[in-house]
Amino acid sequence: MNVTVVGLGLMGGSFAMALRKNQLADQVFGVDRLSEHEKEALELGIVDQCVKLEEAISTSAVIVLATPVDVLLQQVSDVLDRMSPSQFLIDLGSTKFKLTERVKDHSLRGRYVASHPMAGTENTGPKAAFANLYSNAINVICDRQSSDSEAIDLALKLFDGIGMKTVFMEAKDHDKHVAYISHLSHVSSFMLGLTVLNKEEDEKNIANLAGSGFESTVRLAKSSPDMWAPIFAQNKMEVSTALGEYINHLKTFKKMIDEEDQQGMKNAMNQANDIRKILGKS
Amino acid sequence: MNVTVVGLGLMGGSFAMALRKNQLADQVFGVDRLSEHEKEALELGIVDQCVKLEEAISTSAVIVLATPVDVLLQQVSDVLDRMSPSQFLIDLGSTKFKLTERVKDHSLRGRYVASHPMAGTENTGPKAAFANLYSNAINVICDRQSSDSEAIDLALKLFDGIGMKTVFMEAKDHDKHVAYISHLSHVSSFMLGLTVLNKEEDEKNIANLAGSGFESTVRLAKSSPDMWAPIFAQNKMEVSTALGEYINHLKTFKKMIDEEDQQGMKNAMNQANDIRKILGKS
Repeated sequence: MNVTVVGLGLMGGSFAMALRKNQLADQVFGVDRLSEHEKEALELGIVDQCVKLEEAISTSAVIVLATPVDVLLQQVSDVLDRMSPSQFLIDLGSTKFKLTERVKDHSLRGRYVASHPMAGTENTGPKAAFANLYSNAINVICDRQSSDSEAIDLALKLFDGIGMKTVFMEAKDHDKHVAYISHLSHVSSFMLGLTVLNKEEDEKNIANLAGSGFESTVRLAKSSPDMWAPIFAQNKMEVSTALGEYINHLKTFKKMIDEEDQQGMKNAMNQANDIRKILGKS
Repeated sequence: MNVTVVGLGLMGGSFAMALRKNQLADQVFGVDRLSEHEKEALELGIVDQCVKLEEAISTSAVIVLATPVDVLLQQVSDVLDRMSPSQFLIDLGSTKFKLTERVKDHSLRGRYVASHPMAGTENTGPKAAFANLYSNAINVICDRQSSDSEAIDLALKLFDGIGMKTVFMEAKDHDKHVAYISHLSHVSSFMLGLTVLNKEEDEKNIANLAGSGFESTVRLAKSSPDMWAPIFAQNKMEVSTALGEYINHLKTFKKMIDEEDQQGMKNAMNQANDIRKILGKS
């Protein structure tokens, strides 16, 4: 079985490497719009060879799309148009509702599995890819009932095979949850970076004083704008709601600071401490 | 030379361990208002013995205060009152302006070194302490000119000895910088945790979907409310200003999301990406 991965950045590149490492495909083909990325992917052993998308579709049992979500919107539909009913399509995009809506009436919808592996780093491009990115992480498959059981089985074989645990969810619920759990963290971190950079013109002060706490909180501000702008736009209702709630909490807390209401601050922080129960003590 | 550390939590406990590990004191005495903490500190080998503060002052060449900043405000003054001119006082508090203002006219001000080692984790208590917390981190000494050179030399001997690099800064500048670099990160993270917890009543969804990005951004939300409320209150002008700017950036970004202004979002995120230059690519 040959698998083609389209988009050889962090997500797609790591997926291709994980497939190869776990011997889940005879050959892993790569497609990227940038020839430089294809060259790097070959040099780094991310894929067996790079091919044109047309050729990939005609020679692969499975096509995996790992492109930015604005590209995906058209690409999922395009690839389904050109696929045969014996092939499978999987995407790894971070938003799911618009995508699944777009192709819900496609004759080959059953061959498509809408997925979102919950893994990533703040780095981008083929050089950022590594075979263990997905190990022990959670994968979400959306709208399971819209995919053929054969397609779900194939997808699970791949996701299980690279060490992921899959949960199932409706696309709408997925988009709401990730707005809070993932997209909001990114906005919060991007804007923290911006606030500090705008204020601290002397970079040396930042470099000098930044402890591990700041580094941790601002880490996602290094993420790719080209990947994230389309995600925020596609999930705008949910992200905007989450962000509005976040801003309200910050305003309430600012008021407590202004009033030196230490008890109020402590109560809010004590509530926030409950995140410890969920994430563990690490 | 005997050193007493008052407050045997993460900061003080780690400082005591680092002194012992690097053989910078003959004996390290510990003082904590909780007898349970003193017991743990002895069991964990954090200090040689626990003593009363009175006894500590009479038998130590150096007193190191590692208590919450609201306690410090009185304690720095009290200890200076009871010290002899041959002794030294160091504090490790996260805010410096109010503290230095309070004792600026004290007859023993020269024996006091106002310090802020830029290190920490989200964990608290003696069990959170470890000898390498301060290794390779930056220490800030404020208002150098207000301390005797003998006191500065002693402080540097200890901070250098535990592997820190010291920079000098005015207390007012320190408080402004840490509002952005440290205090704002904590507010941002506490409120992120609160927003997600309030929305996601089903804890399983959080635990399931939280990737490493969320964990990193929300990590500081596990920090101690009793330690942080006094810091925010003591540095309220600077923290409130920083927080106000952060909220404004978030509001601007929310508007871009609402308007699907992807170019605006990309510009803002590209600016934020510059944090990469400062923090490195790790």
